Amino acid sequence: MYEIVLIRHGESEYNRQNLFTGWSDPDLTEKGVEEAKKAGKLLKDAGYTFDLAFASVLKRSIKTLNYILDEMDLLWIPVQKSWKLNERHYGALQGLSKSETALQYGEEQLHIWRRSLSVRPPMLKPDDPRYARHDIRYKEVRPGDIPRGESLEDTVHRVGDFWTNRIVPLIRKKERVLISAHGNTLRALIKYMEDIDETALLDLNIPTGVPLVYKLDDDVKPISRFYLGEPEEVQQKAREVANQSKVTE
Amino acid sequence: MYEIVLIRHGESEYNRQNLFTGWSDPDLTEKGVEEAKKAGKLLKDAGYTFDLAFASVLKRSIKTLNYILDEMDLLWIPVQKSWKLNERHYGALQGLSKSETALQYGEEQLHIWRRSLSVRPPMLKPDDPRYARHDIRYKEVRPGDIPRGESLEDTVHRVGDFWTNRIVPLIRKKERVLISAHGNTLRALIKYMEDIDETALLDLNIPTGVPLVYKLDDDVKPISRFYLGEPEEVQQKAREVANQSKVTE
Repeated sequence: MYEIVLIRHGESEYNRQNLFTGWSDPDLTEKGVEEAKKAGKLLKDAGYTFDLAFASVLKRSIKTLNYILDEMDLLWIPVQKSWKLNERHYGALQGLSKSETALQYGEEQLHIWRRSLSVRPPMLKPDDPRYARHDIRYKEVRPGDIPRGESLEDTVHRVGDFWTNRIVPLIRKKERVLISAHGNTLRALIKYMEDIDETALLDLNIPTGVPLVYKLDDDVKPISRFYLGEPEEVQQKAREVANQSKVTE
Repeated sequence: MYEIVLIRHGESEYNRQNLFTGWSDPDLTEKGVEEAKKAGKLLKDAGYTFDLAFASVLKRSIKTLNYILDEMDLLWIPVQKSWKLNERHYGALQGLSKSETALQYGEEQLHIWRRSLSVRPPMLKPDDPRYARHDIRYKEVRPGDIPRGESLEDTVHRVGDFWTNRIVPLIRKKERVLISAHGNTLRALIKYMEDIDETALLDLNIPTGVPLVYKLDDDVKPISRFYLGEPEEVQQKAREVANQSKVTE
């Protein structure tokens, strides 16, 4: 039997301003930093330790991880950063606020983009400065693999591929793994692992900065999951996400 | 022609308290954090960028690197951490203050330990809790390779080996490399690269938190080195180190 821990980064500047974030790279807010430190303390106090950690290439994920590792006195462990753990790419919605988006596309369309598993947001145009092909951090990714907008299902494929090929082999070697990622990346990973139905998936609100522990069987299939921390506080944070998620996915 | 940048971590708690540090793992002081951030700004303003970075497995080196990468918006680059970049191991002197050491061993002996290239400090006993064999972060190192005390020459061999086998091949691939390490590790690396004589080496005082740029020829041999920043300020910091180094190596 194995165990892994997932964590959604702490509050970012875009979260606070209610902007669609996706592959945009805002910093953590002070609250986000505190959430990350608290997660590190929770993990340490509960007796967890890790042999290696994963993050996306977005700073809110990396900094959340660094604060956690610092609290746990584990800064020295190897950290692998991959764009495959980046947040769902929100295409041309990235950087827009909910009100701007509703104004531009209508409430009905907005709802579909947010709640459908398979519908993609409006794609970035190839010459859009937000298109990651222009960003040096993706220079080693095949241009055809760099999204200009993703459905949640696209994210499930990308994250599932990374999980199977890069993370599972390490878990089988008994490496204790921590994954610091994003709201929709983690929902995608949960969808991939548990194959939960669309309704349950869309109701799945992952609170920021709360360690999510997975127990896995000998085939690295999930047995159970639970959050670390005070249950009321975790539930309260999940409710906040449910409300926020209308505007900050 | 190639270029690399070396940096000595910012001030640590042990530096401030005038303790022998070695493989002990104190945190940065607030001043040390500011030094690291300033180094990042200097590098960014001077137009530097990096493809990958190295640090030791000691937190003062890793955190200095993280602050620099954050300032440069490069947190996403790969970071390799290795015990081979750890500070010179100061054996049984680790954690002692200069006055304790002088009291225990005499001023003359202290001078030899500090100024000789080849004389080792008193070794840690195998059952000493400071012996890194008891530390999980060195679990994959062959026990015989874990020092109980090093001369500067021992450190030259260890760091030189890592430079040749792990860093040079990457430089040849045109990777732009940043190395965040320690006073004696960097002196050892400079000794290894330039083969400077013992007197010049012992006079080499590397200031904390100041980027040291090396120009290298096509064979990855040094052509020249210089510090980034205001020359007077760099000289002042080097003088401080010359005075401090009597107690904080």
